[in-house]
Amino acid sequence: MRKTTTGTEWEIRAPITFSYRVKETRDVLDPADDSLLFGHITDQATLARAKARSPMKRVVVVDEEVHRLYGHRIEAYFVANKVDARIMALPTKEENKDIELTLEIAKAIDEHGIDRRLEPVIAIGGGVCMDIVGFAASIYRRRTPYIRVPTTLMGYVDASVGAKSGINFNGKKNKLGAYIPPALALLDRSFLATLDQRQLSNGAAEIMKMALVKSPELFSLLERHGPTLIEYKFQDLPASLAGADGPEVPQRVLQLAIGTMLEELAPNLWEDSLVRLVDFGHIFSVELEMEVLHSEKLFHGEAVAIDMAYSTVLAFVRGHIDADTRDRILSAMAGLRLPVYHEAQESRMIAKAMYERAKFSQGQKMPLPSGEGISRIYNNVTEEQLEAALALHKQLCAPPSENELA
Amino acid sequence: MRKTTTGTEWEIRAPITFSYRVKETRDVLDPADDSLLFGHITDQATLARAKARSPMKRVVVVDEEVHRLYGHRIEAYFVANKVDARIMALPTKEENKDIELTLEIAKAIDEHGIDRRLEPVIAIGGGVCMDIVGFAASIYRRRTPYIRVPTTLMGYVDASVGAKSGINFNGKKNKLGAYIPPALALLDRSFLATLDQRQLSNGAAEIMKMALVKSPELFSLLERHGPTLIEYKFQDLPASLAGADGPEVPQRVLQLAIGTMLEELAPNLWEDSLVRLVDFGHIFSVELEMEVLHSEKLFHGEAVAIDMAYSTVLAFVRGHIDADTRDRILSAMAGLRLPVYHEAQESRMIAKAMYERAKFSQGQKMPLPSGEGISRIYNNVTEEQLEAALALHKQLCAPPSENELA
Repeated sequence: MRKTTTGTEWEIRAPITFSYRVKETRDVLDPADDSLLFGHITDQATLARAKARSPMKRVVVVDEEVHRLYGHRIEAYFVANKVDARIMALPTKEENKDIELTLEIAKAIDEHGIDRRLEPVIAIGGGVCMDIVGFAASIYRRRTPYIRVPTTLMGYVDASVGAKSGINFNGKKNKLGAYIPPALALLDRSFLATLDQRQLSNGAAEIMKMALVKSPELFSLLERHGPTLIEYKFQDLPASLAGADGPEVPQRVLQLAIGTMLEELAPNLWEDSLVRLVDFGHIFSVELEMEVLHSEKLFHGEAVAIDMAYSTVLAFVRGHIDADTRDRILSAMAGLRLPVYHEAQESRMIAKAMYERAKFSQGQKMPLPSGEGISRIYNNVTEEQLEAALALHKQLCAPPSENELA
Repeated sequence: MRKTTTGTEWEIRAPITFSYRVKETRDVLDPADDSLLFGHITDQATLARAKARSPMKRVVVVDEEVHRLYGHRIEAYFVANKVDARIMALPTKEENKDIELTLEIAKAIDEHGIDRRLEPVIAIGGGVCMDIVGFAASIYRRRTPYIRVPTTLMGYVDASVGAKSGINFNGKKNKLGAYIPPALALLDRSFLATLDQRQLSNGAAEIMKMALVKSPELFSLLERHGPTLIEYKFQDLPASLAGADGPEVPQRVLQLAIGTMLEELAPNLWEDSLVRLVDFGHIFSVELEMEVLHSEKLFHGEAVAIDMAYSTVLAFVRGHIDADTRDRILSAMAGLRLPVYHEAQESRMIAKAMYERAKFSQGQKMPLPSGEGISRIYNNVTEEQLEAALALHKQLCAPPSENELA
């Protein structure tokens, strides 16, 4: 508090600490596993109160596709545990990620009569499902705890561990949202077994991001086991294939991805700092995604991969990595069956991305590889370097026909 | 991070600090006062960037009634400061405090093209206006800074200083909302000069709350100057009336109310703790407001005053205060022209309020006066005490006709 010429002025500093939990489970829908019901609770007194509710209540939002595959097990789980569950199977697709679906969920929360402090809302699905349920819970009574159960690889390694939720608004992506983390994210690898290759590669792009940004061990595992990880859908590998790294390679890869992601996210949960290594792969891809939005269906992770490939070449052009490291990174991405080139990513788009980046981030603040499993933030990328990298990226990564035509 | 039988578990603790400012101004709409444009900025570099924007942009939401009185000055302020302002005069009444109006504001924010980090959304109006604009800004891009300029006494002493925003949903009050504080609240007493007595008394109820809860000095000032404060609409008093306390009594009263409120709010910004002195007057009034919602228009502060009067009598019945203190509190409330009794507040309603309180607050946690300007939290209020207080409250505070009929 201080006096000014016009009166008193108070400066308020109010600290909040978000506590949450990310937990691996082996079979989250096994009725004997109570993680889904009580895994968010951290003390015995609260646990006793939660168990004393009669009947216990939960609102459970399940992606329609996931419900088709796992609906019977989800229903059975809550029946076996004597929970009055309001299970909503919803089309949680990008085109429905809007305020209408948010309010439909909020209304169900309001009407089902859960005890807001004890009975979190549960989201079972991919990134969109977690985004929309997280937002509905975050605004219901100013903050209602929720649990994320990702069923896609992208959801598992990216959407599940951070605080962000959001919906599309006014024709634009994620314009409304919140920064309230889930009380708990439950990671169950067995869901990944029903995904197809493209969905798996999509999520693997974010794993590769964390490898390039800050984990030499993770990079090395991806380099050696990439194709096998995709082929075996991140389930335990046959001993014959895993070699010295053992059949638990997929679990180790996922743990490293989650652990490194949390290290980067937790100190900057509300993105107050604009200096973010996790922005790697998310600078040029934003423009690429917008550009091809209507003409073709490019997955988020695919756009990120194309960005990462270009950025890797850019790092080489700038002298941060040598040709061998550059080529090993590109090969490892290909090993995960990720695209590394798109012809729509040309000079004008790169320039636009750099302009938007400088504007929104108050400077370039560009994360670029500076070794295997190490990236640093740079602020002096020049137009010449961007152009040189474009030419070299095309030469190295474009399909042969395009280079012949050029 | 720890290992469990099903895999790895990560415990995340992510600290966030909200910093904001509450500032008294003398004439916020004087074009020479730049508080409304730059008062939220705390460092020179950011100030330079904000001033360099060409043109500067702002979205300004003004309550319709306020716009009728001050619209020309508001327009002139932004014109004089060369700001491209999107001024929205909206009917920010309780019945419009819904998602539709929220989205209308969010759309304007999205389309006006403000720089989200430098150009906060501005709300000029009463509590409803600040509630709805605060919510729209809080969810736009997961958090967009906003400024509150309260024009009612209730807004000035209560809504402006906390973090809460909210809208009505599914037929219920404040069911959707956020806990994001404004970047700045600008307190300009001159707006109060155009309010009528009932609006002033309404806000004065929250000032009395803070007096009873934790400020003997504030209680003493209200006791001595209550009627004059209302009559002179919290503007400076004529020297002849102010006596030894001086003409700045209204400013001192408001400063004490804000200061004590901030002391209670700041450490518990997200209401994680349920032990809250500021709940005083807000336990029985919740039920009273719901009960009479459709039959008559009781202001929030009026319901709070009736609750405080009953609670004061309850504190006497329980032996926390003597008869003299009790009567001085009731007189001071009457001096602010606040109602101290409502016949709808009877046994059944009191019992319901106690039940809801115990349920939502995990115990009674009842703040009750324990002296002049001091309240404490109690957990052992009995049904007998509640009944005895009801009878005595009626005897002391009901209009004579009702006591005769009884």
